[in-house]
Amino acid sequence: MAGGFFEYGPAESIIRQKLLTKIRKTFEDFGFDPIETPAIERMKVLLGGEETSEKIIFQVRTTGGEAKDIKKDELALRFDLTVPLARFVAANPEIPKPFKRYQIGQVFRGESPQAGRYREFTQADIDIVGTQSLEADAEIITMIYAVFKNLGINKFTIRINNRKILNALPDFAGFPEKKLFLLLRLIDKKDKIGEKGLKKEIVKLFSKKAAEKIFAFLSVSGNKEEKLAVARDLLKNYPEAEKGIQEMVKIARLLEASGVDSSNWDIDFSMVRGLGYYTGPIFETVLNAVPSIGSVFSGGRYDNLAAVFTGEKLPAVGASLGVDRLFAALETLNLLKKKATVAKALILNLAVEWQSDYFAFAKKLREAGVNTAVYIGDDRAFQAQLAYAVKKEIPYVIIYGEEERKKGTITIKDMLKREQKEIPKNNLAQYFKK
Amino acid sequence: MAGGFFEYGPAESIIRQKLLTKIRKTFEDFGFDPIETPAIERMKVLLGGEETSEKIIFQVRTTGGEAKDIKKDELALRFDLTVPLARFVAANPEIPKPFKRYQIGQVFRGESPQAGRYREFTQADIDIVGTQSLEADAEIITMIYAVFKNLGINKFTIRINNRKILNALPDFAGFPEKKLFLLLRLIDKKDKIGEKGLKKEIVKLFSKKAAEKIFAFLSVSGNKEEKLAVARDLLKNYPEAEKGIQEMVKIARLLEASGVDSSNWDIDFSMVRGLGYYTGPIFETVLNAVPSIGSVFSGGRYDNLAAVFTGEKLPAVGASLGVDRLFAALETLNLLKKKATVAKALILNLAVEWQSDYFAFAKKLREAGVNTAVYIGDDRAFQAQLAYAVKKEIPYVIIYGEEERKKGTITIKDMLKREQKEIPKNNLAQYFKK
Repeated sequence: MAGGFFEYGPAESIIRQKLLTKIRKTFEDFGFDPIETPAIERMKVLLGGEETSEKIIFQVRTTGGEAKDIKKDELALRFDLTVPLARFVAANPEIPKPFKRYQIGQVFRGESPQAGRYREFTQADIDIVGTQSLEADAEIITMIYAVFKNLGINKFTIRINNRKILNALPDFAGFPEKKLFLLLRLIDKKDKIGEKGLKKEIVKLFSKKAAEKIFAFLSVSGNKEEKLAVARDLLKNYPEAEKGIQEMVKIARLLEASGVDSSNWDIDFSMVRGLGYYTGPIFETVLNAVPSIGSVFSGGRYDNLAAVFTGEKLPAVGASLGVDRLFAALETLNLLKKKATVAKALILNLAVEWQSDYFAFAKKLREAGVNTAVYIGDDRAFQAQLAYAVKKEIPYVIIYGEEERKKGTITIKDMLKREQKEIPKNNLAQYFKK
Repeated sequence: MAGGFFEYGPAESIIRQKLLTKIRKTFEDFGFDPIETPAIERMKVLLGGEETSEKIIFQVRTTGGEAKDIKKDELALRFDLTVPLARFVAANPEIPKPFKRYQIGQVFRGESPQAGRYREFTQADIDIVGTQSLEADAEIITMIYAVFKNLGINKFTIRINNRKILNALPDFAGFPEKKLFLLLRLIDKKDKIGEKGLKKEIVKLFSKKAAEKIFAFLSVSGNKEEKLAVARDLLKNYPEAEKGIQEMVKIARLLEASGVDSSNWDIDFSMVRGLGYYTGPIFETVLNAVPSIGSVFSGGRYDNLAAVFTGEKLPAVGASLGVDRLFAALETLNLLKKKATVAKALILNLAVEWQSDYFAFAKKLREAGVNTAVYIGDDRAFQAQLAYAVKKEIPYVIIYGEEERKKGTITIKDMLKREQKEIPKNNLAQYFKK
């Protein structure tokens, strides 16, 4: 395995599958449908998204004589699931809108590897395409909330802001509009450079008067109502900002109606999201106990992206869950209940002539929902078989030896409780039903 | 999307997920543990497998300034899950053996695309590493059987052969050993070139006497016992072949003990498997009604592959399910029960002031296990909302309008039965429990 790539053994993979099953279920609870698009896309599709840099894209090419229809530099690995979605909806105009889809899959970025950041990682994306209604934005946020709740995570904060508010900053603070992206990029680095560092950089870049107005905006604090009131007052002469604030108020109302606990979301005017294509509400989620790991589930409204492929405006809103990052955070928080194997019972393989019995026991247990293995290692010594169960951390060992055979019983060793029980042969499946 | 790549919309993706969940469950029934390895591997790892051709491998590289630690031509996309498994077990020597693992993931091949063959496709692999016992081979075959049974497929045949028998052919028929791989490659093309074509090619390549002996072997027929008896007689002076036949007999006994229906497997001396690394039993599975689609679940014993990475022999046996090919076969056979959406109920969004009610209904239904969407499209006309449910094929529509509100009821439209029912508001979740 090359540097910057994950690798999950059984213990990690088992718990990851469990997480993904719950995430998938939550998406479907809300009526989101899955789609599957390939990891390999045309380079020109991937570069269609507004602010994509070729730098992080992995090119894909064949070296040999096969696949002559593939042109040089034509193919590449997707770096997210949003651009492929935009291509998909453009290619399938008959799909009823609003189109609510989820996709879980690997994405690839040729970045320099950092802690918790891989070059290949799993994203779980939810998007609603084809509606401008803010109910869609609220539904995405509500589903983010439901995902964490269903994963048993209660201490998280969904930070919400709105690009329409941020877009008013040049007018409001008096700096050229083309400098806005520089300001947003700076604010985006706030967690890295600290508040002091941010102030220093802003003063360097803007006039003193502009910097002061920017600080005034960034330091709006208090509870949600207070923040909204101060911001409304501050930005009252800027119609786009006012529209953004109205959207915030509406979303707040919808979140309350949807049963999203008020303590799990907040307004954060200094949360800007890196990507350039957002056009309205933006949101990101941090786990309160590990803010350093950054946002694990974030997104926003992007009403112009699909137009790159369709030629007509197709409003959309969505969010992306970084599965590996969430997994790393839960590991840090000791919230993952790992187990070494899915196997629940190991049937010892003690004599060739009784193998039909062993396989029959296995079949019966599997039918009763008990994941069961018959020992198949080369070393058939009783101790070797028991040692295997211990090393594999299989919780139950089933012994059917000469003695048990004579009596019509089975011995079950509970490896965790370190106790064993002899039961009538026919009660085997029943034993595990308790 | 470029040529030769799949794309699955909601209807395909929903049923594929169902299939994969059942497949995964069957693997776990038998105590196989999942692992996850990256799609991107080092090229030199991928070329480590004996007979791999560089031609079908997709190279991966960055074009820009990031990721300077990646050397040119260093990375590539995996073309199967077996070579990465060999690397994984070599890198993790502490894993208890036998190591029973499954992996489901995308693999990539730069081949020219053919019907039912993609350049990116999903494989579901099961392997047992670290035991020479034939119980492992029998377990893999038993699990193949269980997978089809659990998918509700009954008409399939697992064809079994043994490389040890095939390896005796040069001695038996009197041709140089180095020509064996040419013969096997020919036999492998049997389905394409027909029996007549095969004979012609063999006569072209070998002496008349050798060709006759090869035909005698290939045309061994009858039931399993007869085939074994004839082969045993034919090959009685060839110790390796005799060993292969003994292994067949043992596997037959183990399959019977494991409850594998005899009608679902057969001995087929003309089934050779393409790959060079097999060393013992080999097997493949065809769906009886669509033999043209080829083998959908195949594998065998490969005792030398891991040695490429570990330096020491690590016996292994496994099989690989071509998920896309199986999916295509089931589609051909009309065995897929597709549905257009996971959503079961759509709550009409009829008035802003009652949205808290709509969201509360949705929450209640989701908690009751009913996948529920609240309508969030821009066009709020009653007919537009109903038309959306029809187009999306959502089976139930929930109406809570002015009239219902007054009476404390809810109207539920059963879209399939084309009937509607008015129920007390509080009985909503209960309605779906029936």
